[in-house]
Amino acid sequence: MAIEINRICIIGVGMIGGSLSLALKRVRPEIQMVGTGRNVMALERAVELGVLDEYSMNPSDAVRHADIVVLAVPVGATYAVLDTIAPSLSPNTIITDAGSSKLAVIDAVNRVGERYKLNLAAQFVPGHPIAGRENSGVDAAIANLYDQHRVILTPTEQSQAEHIDAIRYMWELAGAHVTDMEPDHHDEVLAATSHLPHVLAYCLVNSLAELEDRRDIFTYAAGGFRDATRIASSDPEMWRDICLTNKAALLEVLDKYQQDLGQLRNLIADGDGRQLEQKFAHARDTRNAALKRMGGSLPAKTK
Amino acid sequence: MAIEINRICIIGVGMIGGSLSLALKRVRPEIQMVGTGRNVMALERAVELGVLDEYSMNPSDAVRHADIVVLAVPVGATYAVLDTIAPSLSPNTIITDAGSSKLAVIDAVNRVGERYKLNLAAQFVPGHPIAGRENSGVDAAIANLYDQHRVILTPTEQSQAEHIDAIRYMWELAGAHVTDMEPDHHDEVLAATSHLPHVLAYCLVNSLAELEDRRDIFTYAAGGFRDATRIASSDPEMWRDICLTNKAALLEVLDKYQQDLGQLRNLIADGDGRQLEQKFAHARDTRNAALKRMGGSLPAKTK
Repeated sequence: MAIEINRICIIGVGMIGGSLSLALKRVRPEIQMVGTGRNVMALERAVELGVLDEYSMNPSDAVRHADIVVLAVPVGATYAVLDTIAPSLSPNTIITDAGSSKLAVIDAVNRVGERYKLNLAAQFVPGHPIAGRENSGVDAAIANLYDQHRVILTPTEQSQAEHIDAIRYMWELAGAHVTDMEPDHHDEVLAATSHLPHVLAYCLVNSLAELEDRRDIFTYAAGGFRDATRIASSDPEMWRDICLTNKAALLEVLDKYQQDLGQLRNLIADGDGRQLEQKFAHARDTRNAALKRMGGSLPAKTK
Repeated sequence: MAIEINRICIIGVGMIGGSLSLALKRVRPEIQMVGTGRNVMALERAVELGVLDEYSMNPSDAVRHADIVVLAVPVGATYAVLDTIAPSLSPNTIITDAGSSKLAVIDAVNRVGERYKLNLAAQFVPGHPIAGRENSGVDAAIANLYDQHRVILTPTEQSQAEHIDAIRYMWELAGAHVTDMEPDHHDEVLAATSHLPHVLAYCLVNSLAELEDRRDIFTYAAGGFRDATRIASSDPEMWRDICLTNKAALLEVLDKYQQDLGQLRNLIADGDGRQLEQKFAHARDTRNAALKRMGGSLPAKTK
């Protein structure tokens, strides 16, 4: 390892940032974890929970002497946070993030760099841990959140090889499997597998809530509903930012979904049982095969 | 109890019918459980697993001397099954079912009754256990499937009070909480809480599968996707029938969903972060409150 990791600054100590800190503390308790953010209560709580060694309400102070700065804020806050810390950042500090849309974060880094005439892009390694729960806040931080989960790094042409290695090493210490991807490809894949499902789940709960005035809808909801809408309990601010920063890729897959749903609707309206059953069987088989590849728990085999 | 339950015939011994049998055997092993269906392998397997005491490939034989006949077949098969057994049914046998759409099943009972000049409606107590998993087949049958789950009975004006009591008693023996509902209200509620979510999940998997040719979509799917699409592993034939037999109520709520999704899409396209966040927060709060009422496990409180 060319770069020693002695001090990490987490900006935004919620479930994502807090879990990273707890995960690292399991194996490298000597790394100093310092936090900063806008909520002093959350930062105090983080120290109380052993998530942080210390915190500062002043981001410029917090990032000083850090080997790595981890942005774990809603992606829409990236520009403002970087704008605050850029003047006090050492050129030796590696910046990384945990955001779910990458092109927008890379763009924010470039814009702040231009504003301060700094080559921030050369310090930056964009990252995205594919592990989240519907919970949020530092109380939801858990040490094993990233164990066996993927972290996708989307380095740019400006990213330095030894910085990429350091961030990869940090996530591996935290228990994750690290892979690389092009930023635009990342945004397309995540729009489909994560951002679209979140929008659909939020919408489903809201649609049903409007019906509930007349009917006792939720009283009779079962486990299927609970699971299908679990991600609708996710943090609204975080998901607002993801939708807005990955708008193009999300709209593309959302429009395709609406079209497909319209076709399925017509099969139902037409009473086309043969095609309906084919579509459902295709979905079931695709999902089961995908879960198998993911190593997930499969439902028992159909007779 | 006015009616003694000594012998129950399950028509369609899959997860639903098989689990009912196993649940009853825990507390009333002396009840004779006889099965019938179209798949001899499944019936033999059911005896092997201790789900059934005996089976017959001839439905007319199987229902003879039964105190209760439970239709646990895809709802679209109701008419054909009843048409087969009607001539050999004793007028003292209570008929019930486990179908997820009730108006269509009631209609099938009435039509078969008319055809044979039998008052089948007076023997029939429509029922629907709100418990299912994405699994199917008799190997997926488990004794505790109905424990603490709701069963909705939707008796008609023809249903006899003592028959309703007997079916309620049977499901209570199986561990369930039994409630009553009007058939049309049942179909509206279930269209929203169960049928719509299944259609959305099937559609989501299929939409993503079409993208996968170009992109490694499913490789990067995480737990959110897995949960959101769990119900897309459900039995295609069963869900084809549910969609077709509850078409009117399903299309109503599906059309509303498409409209709501279109509005959400426009908020994203317009970059209206304030409204997006409000919508997401409303969904989160609604879901968390609903889960609380359902007694389900809630996510940790947001800071």
